[in-house]
Amino acid sequence: MPLEIPEVVIDRLPVYFRLLSRIADEGRTVISSQELGDELDVTPAQIRKDLSYFGRFGKQGRGYSVQRLLEELRLILGLDRRWAVVVVGIGRLGRAVASYPGFQSQGFDIIGRYDADPKLIGSEVDGTLVRDVAELEEDLKRSPVDIGIVTVTAPHAQEVADVLTRGGVRAILNYTPTRMQVPEGVELKHINPVIFLQSMTYHLKRRATEREDLRGRTSIAP
Amino acid sequence: MPLEIPEVVIDRLPVYFRLLSRIADEGRTVISSQELGDELDVTPAQIRKDLSYFGRFGKQGRGYSVQRLLEELRLILGLDRRWAVVVVGIGRLGRAVASYPGFQSQGFDIIGRYDADPKLIGSEVDGTLVRDVAELEEDLKRSPVDIGIVTVTAPHAQEVADVLTRGGVRAILNYTPTRMQVPEGVELKHINPVIFLQSMTYHLKRRATEREDLRGRTSIAP
Repeated sequence: MPLEIPEVVIDRLPVYFRLLSRIADEGRTVISSQELGDELDVTPAQIRKDLSYFGRFGKQGRGYSVQRLLEELRLILGLDRRWAVVVVGIGRLGRAVASYPGFQSQGFDIIGRYDADPKLIGSEVDGTLVRDVAELEEDLKRSPVDIGIVTVTAPHAQEVADVLTRGGVRAILNYTPTRMQVPEGVELKHINPVIFLQSMTYHLKRRATEREDLRGRTSIAP
Repeated sequence: MPLEIPEVVIDRLPVYFRLLSRIADEGRTVISSQELGDELDVTPAQIRKDLSYFGRFGKQGRGYSVQRLLEELRLILGLDRRWAVVVVGIGRLGRAVASYPGFQSQGFDIIGRYDADPKLIGSEVDGTLVRDVAELEEDLKRSPVDIGIVTVTAPHAQEVADVLTRGGVRAILNYTPTRMQVPEGVELKHINPVIFLQSMTYHLKRRATEREDLRGRTSIAP
């Protein structure tokens, strides 16, 4: 496997994986880069380039084996094994995130829930006890964890990230607005709602423009 | 403007916008599809195809004007006007989302915060009063809102979506695990943490593989 695959390519792999899972469910066994490109609206050349980072899957002119590609992506993305996850911050956000369907089935085991609120510590959420975040670092040293999901309030985010990385966690999903600093070698993903809103305003804007056009105007009031 | 632009292309536009903003901040005025492609690791042909949906920005062999492209993307994405947003569900999630930097500066005004919890209703969060979700539909009819961010618990998500769409909201950002049903013409984005975890496990898996290789093993224990 080559050592340096661009992050943007890696970010597209789960999308390929989801699409191919659907295609396999439909009973199809072979797919061309043209068809994959049509589904995702990327050029066939882009598809071939992305997948070429991971070896030779397709035969010229014969398309990709859906099963073979799925299996390879499963291996590449690490979906062939199970990952231990802790959720830190068990307010609504933490509960919402932890109850998301697909964790278990995709190999993610939420093995710990942590909070700092004495009213929550010791209570049961989704069948597991909420533990004191003050014990998190010790717990991580006793039983290693792969991924931390941080759903605390913004002022506590960096502190929690520090505890997680000191405890050996190597991937953090940050739901807080805080820009975390993590040591090199720790993966960090930040969920930014503004990016999601921007792709929706495209549609709102377009419809508003169409309505204005119907009324015979040429510009839109700010 | 053409009527049908694939959703996957639209989802890439905020990424182009962010990249071009950075390039403009660096003082550059012209950029080629090759350079844009290198930055995002997509083929130049893909860049040209994506941008061609929105008209002719570049001159063959001379590259794109960064300012012109930014202005067009600002118009296309509706970032040239302000959007009214309500956040429904003012637990930690709602507070975290609403306090995200970039809302104001990108044109999103959070004009209302709603909850069903009597302990929260009437309290002040980030300078605005939390209102009773029971009043949401009436409020929406009095003062129209463009976007609703839903950060309630899963069992209430559909109910809130129904109230929002009855009140004329045309875009919903769903942070809950509930798969919402919305009428046609309402934009819906769902934030699924599993997709984010999958692009991080790629790195964890790769590093684990490298460590195993160092130890002279050829396969990885599950």
